[in-house]
Amino acid sequence: MKPIAFVTDYGNDDEFAGVCRWVIELIAPGAKVIDLTHGIPPGDVRRGAFALAAAVPYGPEAIALGVVDPGVGTTRRPIAAAAGTGHLLVGPDNGLLSLALDELGGASAVVDLTESSFRLDPVSATFHGRDIFAPVAAHLARGATLADAGEPIDPLSLARLAEPRVVIHDDHVAAHVAYFDRFGNVLLDMLARQVPDGLRTLGTRLVVEAGADGREAVAASTFGDAVEGGMVVYENAIGRLAIAVNRGSARDALQIEVDDQVLIRAA
Amino acid sequence: MKPIAFVTDYGNDDEFAGVCRWVIELIAPGAKVIDLTHGIPPGDVRRGAFALAAAVPYGPEAIALGVVDPGVGTTRRPIAAAAGTGHLLVGPDNGLLSLALDELGGASAVVDLTESSFRLDPVSATFHGRDIFAPVAAHLARGATLADAGEPIDPLSLARLAEPRVVIHDDHVAAHVAYFDRFGNVLLDMLARQVPDGLRTLGTRLVVEAGADGREAVAASTFGDAVEGGMVVYENAIGRLAIAVNRGSARDALQIEVDDQVLIRAA
Amino acid sequence: MKPIAFVTDYGNDDEFAGVCRWVIELIAPGAKVIDLTHGIPPGDVRRGAFALAAAVPYGPEAIALGVVDPGVGTTRRPIAAAAGTGHLLVGPDNGLLSLALDELGGASAVVDLTESSFRLDPVSATFHGRDIFAPVAAHLARGATLADAGEPIDPLSLARLAEPRVVIHDDHVAAHVAYFDRFGNVLLDMLARQVPDGLRTLGTRLVVEAGADGREAVAASTFGDAVEGGMVVYENAIGRLAIAVNRGSARDALQIEVDDQVLIRAA
Repeated sequence: MKPIAFVTDYGNDDEFAGVCRWVIELIAPGAKVIDLTHGIPPGDVRRGAFALAAAVPYGPEAIALGVVDPGVGTTRRPIAAAAGTGHLLVGPDNGLLSLALDELGGASAVVDLTESSFRLDPVSATFHGRDIFAPVAAHLARGATLADAGEPIDPLSLARLAEPRVVIHDDHVAAHVAYFDRFGNVLLDMLARQVPDGLRTLGTRLVVEAGADGREAVAASTFGDAVEGGMVVYENAIGRLAIAVNRGSARDALQIEVDDQVLIRAA
Repeated sequence: MKPIAFVTDYGNDDEFAGVCRWVIELIAPGAKVIDLTHGIPPGDVRRGAFALAAAVPYGPEAIALGVVDPGVGTTRRPIAAAAGTGHLLVGPDNGLLSLALDELGGASAVVDLTESSFRLDPVSATFHGRDIFAPVAAHLARGATLADAGEPIDPLSLARLAEPRVVIHDDHVAAHVAYFDRFGNVLLDMLARQVPDGLRTLGTRLVVEAGADGREAVAASTFGDAVEGGMVVYENAIGRLAIAVNRGSARDALQIEVDDQVLIRAA
Repeated sequence: MKPIAFVTDYGNDDEFAGVCRWVIELIAPGAKVIDLTHGIPPGDVRRGAFALAAAVPYGPEAIALGVVDPGVGTTRRPIAAAAGTGHLLVGPDNGLLSLALDELGGASAVVDLTESSFRLDPVSATFHGRDIFAPVAAHLARGATLADAGEPIDPLSLARLAEPRVVIHDDHVAAHVAYFDRFGNVLLDMLARQVPDGLRTLGTRLVVEAGADGREAVAASTFGDAVEGGMVVYENAIGRLAIAVNRGSARDALQIEVDDQVLIRAA
């Protein structure tokens, strides 16, 4: 059986993710569930999409089960998609799966699970993770095909996330805060390779502007390239442009929020 | 081997749950542990009981291992119980297992683990999860019987939770906050089917009173049945009466705490 | 395959630990990962070392994979070590593995993973959990030897944690806060067996001084040995001297922080 890679915004305190895991065990005894994370901020579809996209290039062929679903029970479609040589993805059609599908070269086939025969009976209005998505993922793990799971729909009809708006000049770039990680690192909605060479060369002195303030920083490869408390601008482990403070929090230092603009220029 | 469904208030930061998982692996190599949640609020036996009861109807026959045990090391009994056709439950006799046992039709047999031969030696005074409950669950997973695990006791002697106090009239109901979930949804100590039809019909306009204030709400099936920021009263995925704010937090909107009374009446 | 016991400071919200789990599944399909915890405070190497040391005596032979690594990408060495009859430990050489190695009788062999052939290619500068440590642990789980994993180095060259500074007198002891657990219990950098008998006898009335204040407490074996709200000084489940408040938080009661000094004397 393929493993099931599981990501949600259910958090680590309620039993939601656990109930889904138990449903999977009932339908596909012995199936392996690999928890990617259940700590996506509530309803933050984009953060969930980033998490899935960060993981799929590093794992084996699997069933990616994603549930960040603020529109549960409304008209948004529950879907399952095939991509790459053997990846399957299950979740709501709200953009959550879109970046992972991009990483895998796009969806080769998609089905609508609204009337899936794999649903639990009855289906609740508020817990489709338990009643639709986990059961479908479990049946797929057991070897069911997409065609068994639902009705074919056009891959081009899938919801997508809003495109990031970045500014790229020779002497400065501007992007927005996509998310923060636990260490207070600031992840921007821009890839490091989009940054002009003149700003990327290791050791280049930079200024990071968020709001009215400017902070000195250095183009670096890792946190320890700055003195303790010093700020670095770096390419993170999935190619994203990011800002950190060595043994500190760039989020706190810059006093910024998700979606705030950040400008990075030569010092 | 039956899987072990594991729920505690150990949290997700300390190594307590992890040490229990490792103890299980030592005694029952290859046993599957399904984490329901370890985020039960510290010592909140009732919340733990709700979590277990929400899960057992959806999983296969298993060993439910529950540790929410503020009285660890005192005279409360460690127990294991059998229920249904093949469920086993292990935990302290403080009500934690009671709602799941109810879901399964009651305990058919119970043993006291105080002198169980499956305990680790020595038994610490403060970590019975590691020293009693996890080892007993692991031995049961390997096929040991209840009789092997401890001394029989009367199922009717088990501790129970306090019964909820609800008020039910044709034009209003009153109940109390049982718990909140991560999304700020308010779960009441009342089942949705206890609510009179006149208040339950989808689309019925309601007023939710907590403390002095009243908030407009609508009887609905899911969050998206209200406008963004609107309040819904709904039956949650385990039949409980609940209150939510679409893309918001009912907990914050109502400014209430666990055990506070909530009155719901026709508008 | 030996199980992999996994402890990090990656937290429970980001996908870091999940990506490592998925990398392990790619390299060692079917390998069992036992999460000890991922909630070590960011960069708190000592807390991570305590967690590992608390777990290894209770589990089977395994591969302990630890990543608390504030110096990632700098000159600190990534290492793998053998200890006991068949334990293997993988992580940064910053003291994280040191206490577990002590529990196991010291390292019998250590290799430097800097140039390990098991690394992913390329190796990022900031995510060695994914790119070095998890892959090495996965290959070891599949049966690779330490010699396959890296270059031998002298076990005596490994980094160690600072030694605790304790004061021991017949009528008082002084130690420091090593960490807190979820329940607000205060764990000191001192073993219970270091405390003179006159202060340890159960029921002995004590005073706990932190800062200027003194709080009454009692030498006890478990929380319930005090009245609700009462303070106990006890030997915790891994032999450490600890302070708790029955159904409360000693951390809150004493208003102390990690590394603060605590003096315990006869009343």
